[in-house]
Amino acid sequence: MEPPFAQTEDLSLNTQIVRKILVDFLRDGIHRSGFQKGVLGLSGGVDSSVAAYLAAEALGPDNVFGLILPYRTSNPESKADAELVAKALGIRTEVVDISPMVDAHFGREGLRERVRKGNIMARERMVVLYDVSSRENALVIGTSNKTETLLGYGTLYGDMACALNPLGDLYKTQVWQLAGAIGVPKSIIEKPPSADLWEGQSDEQELGFAYKDADRLLYHLVDERKSGAELETMGFGKQFIERVQLLVSRNQFKRRPPLVPKISNRTTNIDFLYPRDWGI
Amino acid sequence: MEPPFAQTEDLSLNTQIVRKILVDFLRDGIHRSGFQKGVLGLSGGVDSSVAAYLAAEALGPDNVFGLILPYRTSNPESKADAELVAKALGIRTEVVDISPMVDAHFGREGLRERVRKGNIMARERMVVLYDVSSRENALVIGTSNKTETLLGYGTLYGDMACALNPLGDLYKTQVWQLAGAIGVPKSIIEKPPSADLWEGQSDEQELGFAYKDADRLLYHLVDERKSGAELETMGFGKQFIERVQLLVSRNQFKRRPPLVPKISNRTTNIDFLYPRDWGI
Repeated sequence: MEPPFAQTEDLSLNTQIVRKILVDFLRDGIHRSGFQKGVLGLSGGVDSSVAAYLAAEALGPDNVFGLILPYRTSNPESKADAELVAKALGIRTEVVDISPMVDAHFGREGLRERVRKGNIMARERMVVLYDVSSRENALVIGTSNKTETLLGYGTLYGDMACALNPLGDLYKTQVWQLAGAIGVPKSIIEKPPSADLWEGQSDEQELGFAYKDADRLLYHLVDERKSGAELETMGFGKQFIERVQLLVSRNQFKRRPPLVPKISNRTTNIDFLYPRDWGI
Repeated sequence: MEPPFAQTEDLSLNTQIVRKILVDFLRDGIHRSGFQKGVLGLSGGVDSSVAAYLAAEALGPDNVFGLILPYRTSNPESKADAELVAKALGIRTEVVDISPMVDAHFGREGLRERVRKGNIMARERMVVLYDVSSRENALVIGTSNKTETLLGYGTLYGDMACALNPLGDLYKTQVWQLAGAIGVPKSIIEKPPSADLWEGQSDEQELGFAYKDADRLLYHLVDERKSGAELETMGFGKQFIERVQLLVSRNQFKRRPPLVPKISNRTTNIDFLYPRDWGI
């Protein structure tokens, strides 16, 4: 018998078991660090909605704090969907408009480039999230999935910043599966994924491929360690394979801590590597 | 014969060899990632000054960009010292006043707590540094030393954020030694260390001990793996040992990437761990 969360090509999850693993992960991870509470950014998208459902189950709704962090140009539906989730779960929320801080950055040099603007917005959200986590004596719960993390489709020290991330080992299509199983509203699951960093942004348009296809390719490339030639034999297009391989390798820096040259006997992140819950 | 950079209790460095290792580390680390340039924040303190000297030697002064990021209440001497370093090295600089962004955060809830304010300032500096690194097509060079990193005396996703950090394995007292050897102005080496996040702040006053003592203790505790009992026999005070042990263990989260629960065959930061320069 296969382990209950073994992955197969269709990336189907045993949602019952994965739900339990992720809820336990959040509860243990937060309690063992000496905290009772978690904060997370609610974007109205499926990832942060799933993270909120898991957190409410793990910690109790009173111990989950949702931050809604719109910018001037954000889609008002994003905020409405975030509030829908918070209401369904009974968690507290706070709305912080990031426009003043973001516009102060944009004003520095009349910034016009979309990617730089998007990164500033993602990082300003991080600044608010971490500040509120300090006020609330809570840990920051991450909401990046494995597809985004592998493709580097996220902002380092922005939306990728967190203390612990329940979704980090689930592909986007698996987040959708889990969302359905735990009761996330259908309208949120079915809307087209968007980082909502500029008007009309769509993840799949920007990436140039569908999550469904990327996830299948990433599964074979990363989890099954298939070579480019093997992937071609399986029917994946050569250009698609090369583009995904390039994204995965180019964005490795977003998945690893800063490089430090080894000088001493024991170096941070090289051989000074205690797990978090070591005794003193 | 001991290796040239072996550490001894007095933490004396072979500054010639360490300088070469760190310069090579910066040059290789930046060139092999496909970049020619580095940006770093110049605070006027000894750490960022040493990092700037090493970067100018590694990349050539034309390829180093120094950002001076004062807040309204920053000590004007900090800026003057940063400019002194930039002038001595012949590197380009830009001054960005972080007051508008920082004040927008402070205004959110009439924020008064010193530590929360300091963290916001450190993170706003990161946002500017990363944005400029994107504009300049440069990597962000870190300036945190091993003492700060072990004690957690720094802001996660703030001053600790970087692509690569030449000082990460040097204790503060070793940074001072290296600073002397590579020609950092004496006035910068000799001024009392301060994060300059509020008026009159002093690292050693805030920590409650001198870097000289902390470094010796950390060397025995971390590099030599001495137990509390052994450290007491060596003459370190019990309270001092316990305080430092607590700081080191409590701040482990700042030195490790976010926790991710393992679900799949290969998980980011658990067993998907290519070095940065893997081929595709």
